Amino acid sequence: MIDITLLGTSALAPLPERALTSVFLSCGGHSILFDCGEGTQTAARKAGVSLMKTDIIALSHYHGDHIFGLPGLLQTMLSMNRTEPLYVTGPEGLREVLFDLLRLAGMLSYPVIPLSIPDNGLCLRGFIPGFRFDAALSAFPTEHRVPSRGYCFTLSRPGKFMPEKAKALGVPLKLWNQLQKGEKAEFDGVTVLPEQVLGKPRKGLKFVFSGDTAYCGSLIDASRGADLAVYDATYGENGQAELATEHGHMNFAQAADAAKKAGVKQLWLSHYSQMIQEPSDYLQNAAEIFENAVCGHDGLSAELKFEE
Amino acid sequence: MIDITLLGTSALAPLPERALTSVFLSCGGHSILFDCGEGTQTAARKAGVSLMKTDIIALSHYHGDHIFGLPGLLQTMLSMNRTEPLYVTGPEGLREVLFDLLRLAGMLSYPVIPLSIPDNGLCLRGFIPGFRFDAALSAFPTEHRVPSRGYCFTLSRPGKFMPEKAKALGVPLKLWNQLQKGEKAEFDGVTVLPEQVLGKPRKGLKFVFSGDTAYCGSLIDASRGADLAVYDATYGENGQAELATEHGHMNFAQAADAAKKAGVKQLWLSHYSQMIQEPSDYLQNAAEIFENAVCGHDGLSAELKFEE
Repeated sequence: MIDITLLGTSALAPLPERALTSVFLSCGGHSILFDCGEGTQTAARKAGVSLMKTDIIALSHYHGDHIFGLPGLLQTMLSMNRTEPLYVTGPEGLREVLFDLLRLAGMLSYPVIPLSIPDNGLCLRGFIPGFRFDAALSAFPTEHRVPSRGYCFTLSRPGKFMPEKAKALGVPLKLWNQLQKGEKAEFDGVTVLPEQVLGKPRKGLKFVFSGDTAYCGSLIDASRGADLAVYDATYGENGQAELATEHGHMNFAQAADAAKKAGVKQLWLSHYSQMIQEPSDYLQNAAEIFENAVCGHDGLSAELKFEE
Repeated sequence: MIDITLLGTSALAPLPERALTSVFLSCGGHSILFDCGEGTQTAARKAGVSLMKTDIIALSHYHGDHIFGLPGLLQTMLSMNRTEPLYVTGPEGLREVLFDLLRLAGMLSYPVIPLSIPDNGLCLRGFIPGFRFDAALSAFPTEHRVPSRGYCFTLSRPGKFMPEKAKALGVPLKLWNQLQKGEKAEFDGVTVLPEQVLGKPRKGLKFVFSGDTAYCGSLIDASRGADLAVYDATYGENGQAELATEHGHMNFAQAADAAKKAGVKQLWLSHYSQMIQEPSDYLQNAAEIFENAVCGHDGLSAELKFEE
């Protein structure tokens, strides 16, 4: 129900097998791109995902290794004759950065709209035309050297549909699907709300992207119960915790500790420093703390599904 | 004596095995980068060349697929603590584009200097500190949809050194090397010029980069007798000549025809449209006209040497 593809896992400079930071999320035929470092287009092609219909680009902060893929992506969307608006969100300073990026990208065939995410999250149904799920995108503050934030994508799962209740209320069969999806049904002047025919809401899905951040409480709070989290794990060594904090990053162990404290199901480590040649050499440092820590790599993908 | 590495051969959008346009030239421990599309850094790493000490970046024009690798490269040079000035040259409009690129790149540890190339070429000895060869970089107008130009790099070869003349003039042995390289020698108040001890200048080396251009006389004129030329060959089919011209590009056959007319020794075709999946499928269209046409590919390199 949510597909996540890790496009780039490098920090600072791109490497042949490690593009700069970018994570692609798709759900219900729509998509969000988290960060867009140089090389994101190529990484997406390698991973077999198309960025052309991305609805929202959510930037964690404006360091070059997270945004320099944007002018090229904007131009490629132009060359594909995109007309749908593209929303771009990010922390404080978005308008200025977007202004510079758009100057470089030049004339486009579609509007690029700075998007502000409400404190309680942006409900995507209604916001993205044609998106019919109860999903929300929210942002949370992180601790980097510049204004920064992480993102949380949640997909709610309606309660079980109770056909006997729909029947009793006289809802025509063709409107059942609407109610199952959490939309109201109207017929013969009667309005039936989903909660009248659905059981208690069931556990949904949650994805968290940390962006660049030091170990911090807001990351743990935002990640509570996430099915999957992609975290900054710039440094591999346990002895680099202080260095990581100083630079507004985490090491493998700190990322694992945050994921454990938040009760995350699975953690993908990412944003590796150039010093890390082989991330798996350091995995033990995370796995000792949190066994469901995985070394992210370009193209790693997962399908998050509702529990049976 | 001149090393050329083709870094990227794609037009418009990058592909996993085809980065956007960029050609790296190195000579005498110094280097020039022609164009810098997104992904140039990664392409250079794959090709095993370092861009960190590049002296001049020569842009053919300012379409995104030729310049969007610059902000990232500038930042990587910063992260390597570069302090030497970096010169950037290009056609009309350079200052404005550079302004936008530098705004994105942010604070740097070295000056980025817009460079104007004189009509008769820029003599690199003296201009690049420590560069001791008789080499020149010149620009020539091309025909694209925006202000554009190609570049020509020539390395002169002094005449044969005649030791008997040096001896007769009393030049101390330790100054012979200087004279051989085309520099004057001074000793005991005497000045000996290279032409006094050297034979007639011998055939040097010449490299030409077309940038994006339609078939045009200025390209042929600038390419006369080049040892190697990298040409725009956006389209593969012979039937696409008119389309190519309309878009300010060449097809394989036009590129081959220009190289043949210019008496180029070897031609590398490049800047392939996304329509071209396998450039070698179209090579025949060029080879029928000019047998020394080669399909360029990312990482293709050559060492141009003086004739024996």
